[in-house]
Amino acid sequence: MTTEATTPDEVWRNPHAPVADRVRDLVARMTPQEKLAQLQGIWAGIDAGGEMAPHQHEFAVAPRDFDELTKHGIGQLTRVFGTRPIDPEVGARTLARTQRQIVEASRFGIPALAHEECLTGLAAWQATVYPSPLCWGASFEPDLVRRMAAKFGDSMRRLGIHQGLAPVLDVTRDLRWGRVEETIGEDPHLVGVVGAAYVEGLESAGVVSTLKHFAGYSASRAGRNHAPVSIGPREFADVILPPFEMALRAGARSVMNSYADNDGVPAAADSALLTDRLRDEYGFTGTLVSDYFSVAFLHKLHGVAAGREEAAELALAAGIDVELPTVDCFGDPLLEGLEAGRIDMALVDRALTRVLAQKFELGLLDPGYSPAPSADLDLDDDESRALAREIAERSVVLLQNDGVLPLAGKRLAVIGPRADEPGAMMGCYSFPLHVGVHHPDAEMGIDVPTVLDALRAEHDVVFAQGCPVLGGTDEEIAEAVEAARQADVCVVVLGDLAGLFGKGTSGEGCDAADLKLPGRQEELLEAVLGTGMPVVLVLLSGRPYDLSRQADRLAAVVCGFYPGEEGAAALAGVLSGRVNPSGRLPVSFPGAGSSQPSTYLSAQLGARTEVSTVDPTALYPFGHGLSYAPATWVAVGSEEREWPTDGVCRVHVVVRNESDVVTSEVVQIYLHDPVAEVARPVRQLIGAVKVDLEPGQTRTVSAALHADLTSYTGRAGQRQVDPGDVELHVGTSSANIHTRLRLSMTGPRRAVGFDRVLTPVFDTP
Amino acid sequence: MTTEATTPDEVWRNPHAPVADRVRDLVARMTPQEKLAQLQGIWAGIDAGGEMAPHQHEFAVAPRDFDELTKHGIGQLTRVFGTRPIDPEVGARTLARTQRQIVEASRFGIPALAHEECLTGLAAWQATVYPSPLCWGASFEPDLVRRMAAKFGDSMRRLGIHQGLAPVLDVTRDLRWGRVEETIGEDPHLVGVVGAAYVEGLESAGVVSTLKHFAGYSASRAGRNHAPVSIGPREFADVILPPFEMALRAGARSVMNSYADNDGVPAAADSALLTDRLRDEYGFTGTLVSDYFSVAFLHKLHGVAAGREEAAELALAAGIDVELPTVDCFGDPLLEGLEAGRIDMALVDRALTRVLAQKFELGLLDPGYSPAPSADLDLDDDESRALAREIAERSVVLLQNDGVLPLAGKRLAVIGPRADEPGAMMGCYSFPLHVGVHHPDAEMGIDVPTVLDALRAEHDVVFAQGCPVLGGTDEEIAEAVEAARQADVCVVVLGDLAGLFGKGTSGEGCDAADLKLPGRQEELLEAVLGTGMPVVLVLLSGRPYDLSRQADRLAAVVCGFYPGEEGAAALAGVLSGRVNPSGRLPVSFPGAGSSQPSTYLSAQLGARTEVSTVDPTALYPFGHGLSYAPATWVAVGSEEREWPTDGVCRVHVVVRNESDVVTSEVVQIYLHDPVAEVARPVRQLIGAVKVDLEPGQTRTVSAALHADLTSYTGRAGQRQVDPGDVELHVGTSSANIHTRLRLSMTGPRRAVGFDRVLTPVFDTP
Repeated sequence: MTTEATTPDEVWRNPHAPVADRVRDLVARMTPQEKLAQLQGIWAGIDAGGEMAPHQHEFAVAPRDFDELTKHGIGQLTRVFGTRPIDPEVGARTLARTQRQIVEASRFGIPALAHEECLTGLAAWQATVYPSPLCWGASFEPDLVRRMAAKFGDSMRRLGIHQGLAPVLDVTRDLRWGRVEETIGEDPHLVGVVGAAYVEGLESAGVVSTLKHFAGYSASRAGRNHAPVSIGPREFADVILPPFEMALRAGARSVMNSYADNDGVPAAADSALLTDRLRDEYGFTGTLVSDYFSVAFLHKLHGVAAGREEAAELALAAGIDVELPTVDCFGDPLLEGLEAGRIDMALVDRALTRVLAQKFELGLLDPGYSPAPSADLDLDDDESRALAREIAERSVVLLQNDGVLPLAGKRLAVIGPRADEPGAMMGCYSFPLHVGVHHPDAEMGIDVPTVLDALRAEHDVVFAQGCPVLGGTDEEIAEAVEAARQADVCVVVLGDLAGLFGKGTSGEGCDAADLKLPGRQEELLEAVLGTGMPVVLVLLSGRPYDLSRQADRLAAVVCGFYPGEEGAAALAGVLSGRVNPSGRLPVSFPGAGSSQPSTYLSAQLGARTEVSTVDPTALYPFGHGLSYAPATWVAVGSEEREWPTDGVCRVHVVVRNESDVVTSEVVQIYLHDPVAEVARPVRQLIGAVKVDLEPGQTRTVSAALHADLTSYTGRAGQRQVDPGDVELHVGTSSANIHTRLRLSMTGPRRAVGFDRVLTPVFDTP
Repeated sequence: MTTEATTPDEVWRNPHAPVADRVRDLVARMTPQEKLAQLQGIWAGIDAGGEMAPHQHEFAVAPRDFDELTKHGIGQLTRVFGTRPIDPEVGARTLARTQRQIVEASRFGIPALAHEECLTGLAAWQATVYPSPLCWGASFEPDLVRRMAAKFGDSMRRLGIHQGLAPVLDVTRDLRWGRVEETIGEDPHLVGVVGAAYVEGLESAGVVSTLKHFAGYSASRAGRNHAPVSIGPREFADVILPPFEMALRAGARSVMNSYADNDGVPAAADSALLTDRLRDEYGFTGTLVSDYFSVAFLHKLHGVAAGREEAAELALAAGIDVELPTVDCFGDPLLEGLEAGRIDMALVDRALTRVLAQKFELGLLDPGYSPAPSADLDLDDDESRALAREIAERSVVLLQNDGVLPLAGKRLAVIGPRADEPGAMMGCYSFPLHVGVHHPDAEMGIDVPTVLDALRAEHDVVFAQGCPVLGGTDEEIAEAVEAARQADVCVVVLGDLAGLFGKGTSGEGCDAADLKLPGRQEELLEAVLGTGMPVVLVLLSGRPYDLSRQADRLAAVVCGFYPGEEGAAALAGVLSGRVNPSGRLPVSFPGAGSSQPSTYLSAQLGARTEVSTVDPTALYPFGHGLSYAPATWVAVGSEEREWPTDGVCRVHVVVRNESDVVTSEVVQIYLHDPVAEVARPVRQLIGAVKVDLEPGQTRTVSAALHADLTSYTGRAGQRQVDPGDVELHVGTSSANIHTRLRLSMTGPRRAVGFDRVLTPVFDTP
């Protein structure tokens, strides 16, 4: 059909016509079945024979064959590469062939959008596994994240993938939640700045980025996956939404809903959120795709729809455009409702218009469209690996050090369940682990050295696992103690088994009841500490754990989160001193009494210790991280004492490197608002920048802070900038403030909205 | 001044004039200083010499003498009896003398309202310590609670006390919160029904009851006292507010605010809550008194006021009428604001009008008023003790029993830190503990037998403490193991040290980081279990603890919470079989994975276990409790299949006692709403009744359930009754449902409000 000539009345075929006109024309020509097909995904992974095979699930309709499912066209192809270990070239060829089939089999020849997961790089076999989002946060370097997403986005486009289901912009609220490892951290500003950089990178490669999970998911009660979210409108607006606002302004073209309900209303059925907020207030014109199965959940789990048809109507009316991963409510149930006149076709047309507009904008319906993949399909080339290494090196956080680090010429006992495990380097959304859950024998497809491998390359090492992440025997622990005694220093590598739905200690569906190290790892650590040997703890985990009982006896603590396929070398570099650590915590490590939920964004009264036996003080606070050569803070100042409520305040920080090695500092600017209409956090990050310093170098960081950065949601539910005194707390962590600058905000109260200034402008000549 | 004759223009003196007219007249005559004095409390406990002595606090202004503080009159006298151990007769005489001084020293001769704490009986020396609120909930017998409050209310009135700062109507949301012990439980309906009975009892004695803490306090983040509350309007309306609605309709004449902020807005500054909701919607006309120091907290801790004057204005404007416990913001700071014209006198007059109206209604300004106390001031008479015993007996919960109970002729090893401790019988708001914090050497003033005392009276007993609640040695635990080996059965009595602000393991300010038994008690329990002897665990605690690791090895578990001064005999009665247990849990005991916050009121998706490794299933669910002679359920049915949205549905439950002892059943009716506008709890209590059964007796419980009981707060924020199918789940606990009755709600959707039907009508001939 695509070979037909364009006739004057076929506006939709005219690449020179405005997209809106093309969409309108095409919508008018489509049957209900053809329309609905564009609002559906089909989960069709590539099978062992290189064929596209529908993948079924408990929440989807009964299996039908691929041709039957796509006979009216299809909106999305779900996880073509991510379902099984498939050679990229085979995958790309199969996808291209499938797109041709789809185009040829249907009346208008509309290709499908192919989407994939890509949180830590494309989640496909043989693709680079980059450091996980907590590492991006720890780097405090959005530029690195932008480059990373651009790099793997380019690979995705070459493979024929149009859309990536990332980044995750949920702000960590409860460390017990299994998906903390997918977040960038607990601070909305940091999550937003880094998340927006990711979006810019991926979109610059021509791939549609998908912001998830809109919105509230991370605040699920007690950190249980899918549990209800108890939250009010102000906390929602000031903590949960800002990263989405920043990423939308960075150009994201798709959004995915949260599974959870907020105060009883499931996000997938929340028109106030998905339409009033997202479309009308934020002006978003892209597509809104459902998180997998969440439309059916409206009926089956939330109890807000009486059946699949009602679930479809609710979701469409709320603003969901495409049902993923596969056809269910948006198929026959929706069609029946339309045909019976119970559902208004206008709801379908609204979603369809957005879907088609995106396909037009991607050029999928232009005459020159060809699904043929690019020739160069190396998904783990040297440049990617180097970038993965750089991000890992820049994100390792040195939490404490009594001088034992860097290790030099020491005999090491390397101990612990995460020391010699390639999987320890990655989270549950990295392909090797993600697919490994379903295909336990699948090879990783890439070379992932372990911490043990990396340390062996430069040290005299004895190794003992001690115990697995879960389980283990007294004998194994005894063996580790024996190994510890043979060395000068013990490096104990502990952490998580990332997994999915009960198959791990961290990851989607792998929530924690408390923050004790999983299994017998604390016992192992105590046993090794009992030897009296100096112990360096290396943590490879998806969340902070409670180290409060051991911290004062540990010689050093290094946090890597999941540093990716090049992480072992980065960690070894820090341990040996080749890499001067510059990461800063994007999430606080709990103190003995800091029960969850808890983040550093605590209101004044919440932080008070006189009224509760439970002290919420963190062991290692948000923003904390040490260096082997700490920068000297020479001066902090501001040109102004007054700060107009519509103006800019300039802050200068002068830092000097008095050491003989290259070092870095992360200058962090927090807002403290002593009096406001509502209780505000004691301290909240409004800007941060990492500065590198050559030996002997002095640099001045200048930050231009617009008054909008002080805005918050007041009593009336409107974001506002207030006149009155504020303080800027400038320092090296949320708990280590070097200088407090008191400023008087002058002028009238100002209401601000989506178009407010969201970030400072830093200048560091 | 009170001796002056009434002149025609002095309407306020005329006892026959309408109260509103008297108030208006008096307000018009008062100076600003006289007005403000009526809005203040003064904390003036009786000192060792029987004199009234101002009691200072960090949040109050600098000490001044009593005469200076009361020269313009005074609104409230704070805790005259509750601050030190004072003989009731001395206290009553001192209070009366003080009232005469106050009357004589000021221009209008307005007596103060004297208020006291009275959560578990009057919090004064030598007064009966009744079982704590969790016991009231466990009894499922509002009538007992009504009689209790009437009884001690009568004593209060005789002493000259006008107002009691109870009941606590906070609905438990997080078991870690230290004040869980002050709540009636985790279910709004149960808290409301029992709390309303308390109000009826206290008010029937002529004492003003005070509903606290309005509202949201129990949902403080992570169960930390005073921490922010993350909550949305629907959860607030459907979980937090209903008990207050029920108690207001029961006639409560005062309300006290919550300390915490809800979504950023401190309750003390929340006019939407304290005025729009409480006054305008609920029609409340009584007084709103501040929780101690919470007006100053608006400035000092919440950061929503720039100083004391602004705090006073915010609180007054929001709707707080009286500042407690002592003069601070409502004193000089407020006066300065008024005099400078920054604060509107109308705000003061509004509060003053309510305060004076209450004083007029209490007869304090009538010609015959005399502060002389009654002659009969025995605060712990036989009738009170018998009632305390009855409530204790009816509230003990038998959680599990393998047949070891009742104990008969067994040699017992009684072990544990709570076995021989009178304080184990009471919570932090019972006078002996409350005052004991400040006066550690104070005698209790009443005889409180311990569990050991009571068991010794009827068994051959060997005793070993094993360990204190906190701390202890290996040797002590070894001694307990030795004692265990000498008996047939071990009775291990564990639990909490109730206290205040860090001086306990439960109580105000004594929050828990997790739900492990405090100190080494779990270790002690394991050691005793290790002997292989049958172990009966008796829990005397302010909250449920995690017993999941021991439950399957325990022979029996008995929960007493804090059963009051007669609790030991009640517990011994249950253990020996003289008392057939009939209590049911008002709070769930957590399972191994049920991290907090968690209650049985979980939405469907939140209860799902496939999506999280953390299983929220309770070990002992809400409503659970065993009997030595369980009733047989003969039939459950409903006359109707249709239930009009404005009509009544009748449910019948036939139960029979097939044993040869008296027994009881608590028939529990839960609502399950399969499809609603918002996610609703899987199951929610809408009615419960305890039925006593003689041996061989069959009784029919008839419940008339108005459709209003199915109402919930919908998308629009309005409480509504929906048409459509619902189920009534009738059973013996929230997890043990005997029969599911499916009913079709017919008719239009109905909006309902404060005047809706709140309780079923039970008929049990």
